[in-house]
Amino acid sequence: MINNLMSDIKWDDRGLVTVVVQDYQSGKVLMVAWANEEAIIKSFEGGRACFWSRSRRALWLKGETSGHYQLIKDIYLDCDGDSLVFKVEQVGNIACHTGRNTCFYKRLDVDKDQWINNESVIKDEKDIYGKHG
Amino acid sequence: MINNLMSDIKWDDRGLVTVVVQDYQSGKVLMVAWANEEAIIKSFEGGRACFWSRSRRALWLKGETSGHYQLIKDIYLDCDGDSLVFKVEQVGNIACHTGRNTCFYKRLDVDKDQWINNESVIKDEKDIYGKHG
Repeated sequence: MINNLMSDIKWDDRGLVTVVVQDYQSGKVLMVAWANEEAIIKSFEGGRACFWSRSRRALWLKGETSGHYQLIKDIYLDCDGDSLVFKVEQVGNIACHTGRNTCFYKRLDVDKDQWINNESVIKDEKDIYGKHG
Repeated sequence: MINNLMSDIKWDDRGLVTVVVQDYQSGKVLMVAWANEEAIIKSFEGGRACFWSRSRRALWLKGETSGHYQLIKDIYLDCDGDSLVFKVEQVGNIACHTGRNTCFYKRLDVDKDQWINNESVIKDEKDIYGKHG
């Protein structure tokens, strides 16, 4: 069944698509990640967001270590097929490894010439992943 | 002034960052694009979203042809510095070259095994760009 859906996705030269993760209730953009074919199939079939970690070069089921899974409510594909939006319920309300709701916590303040921290830490990083990271 | 801000951005091996464009009122994700250093400076200084077109290999002031500029209200940077969110006022309410509000107009319907068109066309493509594209 899922093959028809997959054929509309355009993979880049690394075999990846861009995924924007958005909170399905607040509408907040939580993170941007990348996914290969295996990660997309796992996301579509399992209902939890799964990506490809470019740094670790491995499949990355978001929340597997922290428990902060992203339960997929809706999936959208864009006009040219190379980007997806996952609308999710963010377990624990924490998407960022820094313990914040969103990875996009730095807000531009042009007058002050700096990025202002716009989100508080809900849970300390060491309490999410353990003291040894 | 802008140099401090730029130093926090991490460019990929193509010299690009990912930009998620979001409607500042509806919260809808309108599109995903890429920007190089010049495009980001132009966006920050001019207040209208500017990108790097990977297909045309050229600077791309969004709306220059169509008039559908994106007026930047807020800019956010993510934890690892390689993705930005532009919150914008979308002139004409049309972000997509197909004449729709958003490029993410295909919604996944797993049961039907297809992408369902979720957004109506506000303006025909030929009326946006002219009959010769």
